[in-house]
Amino acid sequence: MTGKISVVGLGPGNPDQITPEALKAVAEARLFFGYGPYLDRLSLRPDQQRVASDNREELDRSRAALQAAAAGEKVCVVSGGDPGVFAMAAAVCEAIEDGPEPWRHLELEVVPGVTAMLAVAARMGAPLGHDFCAISLSDNLKPWTLIEQRLRAVAGAGLVIALYNPISRARPWQLGTAFAILREVLPWSTPVIFGRAAGRPDEMLRLVTLADADASTADMATCVIIGSPETRVIERPGRTPIVYSPRSAGGPR
Amino acid sequence: MTGKISVVGLGPGNPDQITPEALKAVAEARLFFGYGPYLDRLSLRPDQQRVASDNREELDRSRAALQAAAAGEKVCVVSGGDPGVFAMAAAVCEAIEDGPEPWRHLELEVVPGVTAMLAVAARMGAPLGHDFCAISLSDNLKPWTLIEQRLRAVAGAGLVIALYNPISRARPWQLGTAFAILREVLPWSTPVIFGRAAGRPDEMLRLVTLADADASTADMATCVIIGSPETRVIERPGRTPIVYSPRSAGGPR
Repeated sequence: MTGKISVVGLGPGNPDQITPEALKAVAEARLFFGYGPYLDRLSLRPDQQRVASDNREELDRSRAALQAAAAGEKVCVVSGGDPGVFAMAAAVCEAIEDGPEPWRHLELEVVPGVTAMLAVAARMGAPLGHDFCAISLSDNLKPWTLIEQRLRAVAGAGLVIALYNPISRARPWQLGTAFAILREVLPWSTPVIFGRAAGRPDEMLRLVTLADADASTADMATCVIIGSPETRVIERPGRTPIVYSPRSAGGPR
Repeated sequence: MTGKISVVGLGPGNPDQITPEALKAVAEARLFFGYGPYLDRLSLRPDQQRVASDNREELDRSRAALQAAAAGEKVCVVSGGDPGVFAMAAAVCEAIEDGPEPWRHLELEVVPGVTAMLAVAARMGAPLGHDFCAISLSDNLKPWTLIEQRLRAVAGAGLVIALYNPISRARPWQLGTAFAILREVLPWSTPVIFGRAAGRPDEMLRLVTLADADASTADMATCVIIGSPETRVIERPGRTPIVYSPRSAGGPR
């Protein structure tokens, strides 16, 4: 009996944004580990079994999944979005590195998906149309001073910024502070997008300026995209505005 | 007759990585604009028509597509990967902004996809597992000095770097120069991944250190991922190594 562990991205939530590759990986597994709401998205067969865990137990969940795979199970670890972007793939790799030798011999498969910032960007035009970065605003696993330094560096360098994990009950002030820092570096007219549940019936999209950006617009499932000084807004009569970052930069358009 | 323009991401090339949403957008369109090799991936019906153009004609292609949509056609503009990441969505938006007023009234849909860096990262573990950026190395539309400045800023700030458009016949020296710059800022042991055609039969993946990174390993369709100082390599006997960037940063693991 040979175990296998697949770390699978289910995309932002719209079933039409799950790849066939991800569905195949789900069909081939028997034991499913993940955060409950992500597991709820799967339609499992009677022979398939779910092991739900809480949102902040990534490392324990990874170890349990690896242990099951090492015992011969076909295991699937599910993530929303893409598993390699602030999600389960890094936690599984970390558990492998720190775990017992046999875990290194396991077959590991990571199945990519559409990550939140791509889905949110698509709904608004092309705000990530030029150089951009993705930064987690969570200071659970890195010092806040490092986050501040990174925000200043990337904003100063002219990159569009996608913020993941912008806010939570345990981290209520970080996003507001991030906006305050960015207002020191970027024009206050810079477009800011709040995107949640992109492509789903409960989708929420807001476009504001950096001057007006209010942290309370976001929750933990929101992706916040902050434009660069080159990012543009096209007003459209009777339609939502388009936001895009031009392919050219650093000179006259 | 009401026209519509869809800008659709076909993913990195593996048909199993195309979303159902993208296939639906293709099924609903009649006229297809794009770079020939991307159009070749589609199985079109007899009533559907393709308009292929060369790789560097994004703006002309966008204008032709918008003109057709304004004349009432259902138009699809195809991109590899995600259309919002160094691809057609920004070009279409730019054409709308600079184009005639009626183009702003068109229905515009952008359909996200799995972009190259996510597909390459998935094949190697989780190299984008923490803060990262995506930078185009093409100096066709921005000055090289700006690219240098961005590389120094993001490497110095500890972000993993995904390089798009790393090299071409017309831009032969830029990637080698980028590696030289990064060797001034990053440890020479930093992992560097060259990924091409991820998930396809002709997939090419190479893992080297920054010290050994050689620009001639890449071509224009390669995505190059350069780790941060925290990125780790797990050697596995009998299997390819895993590369991942830990979820924690800036302190002891």
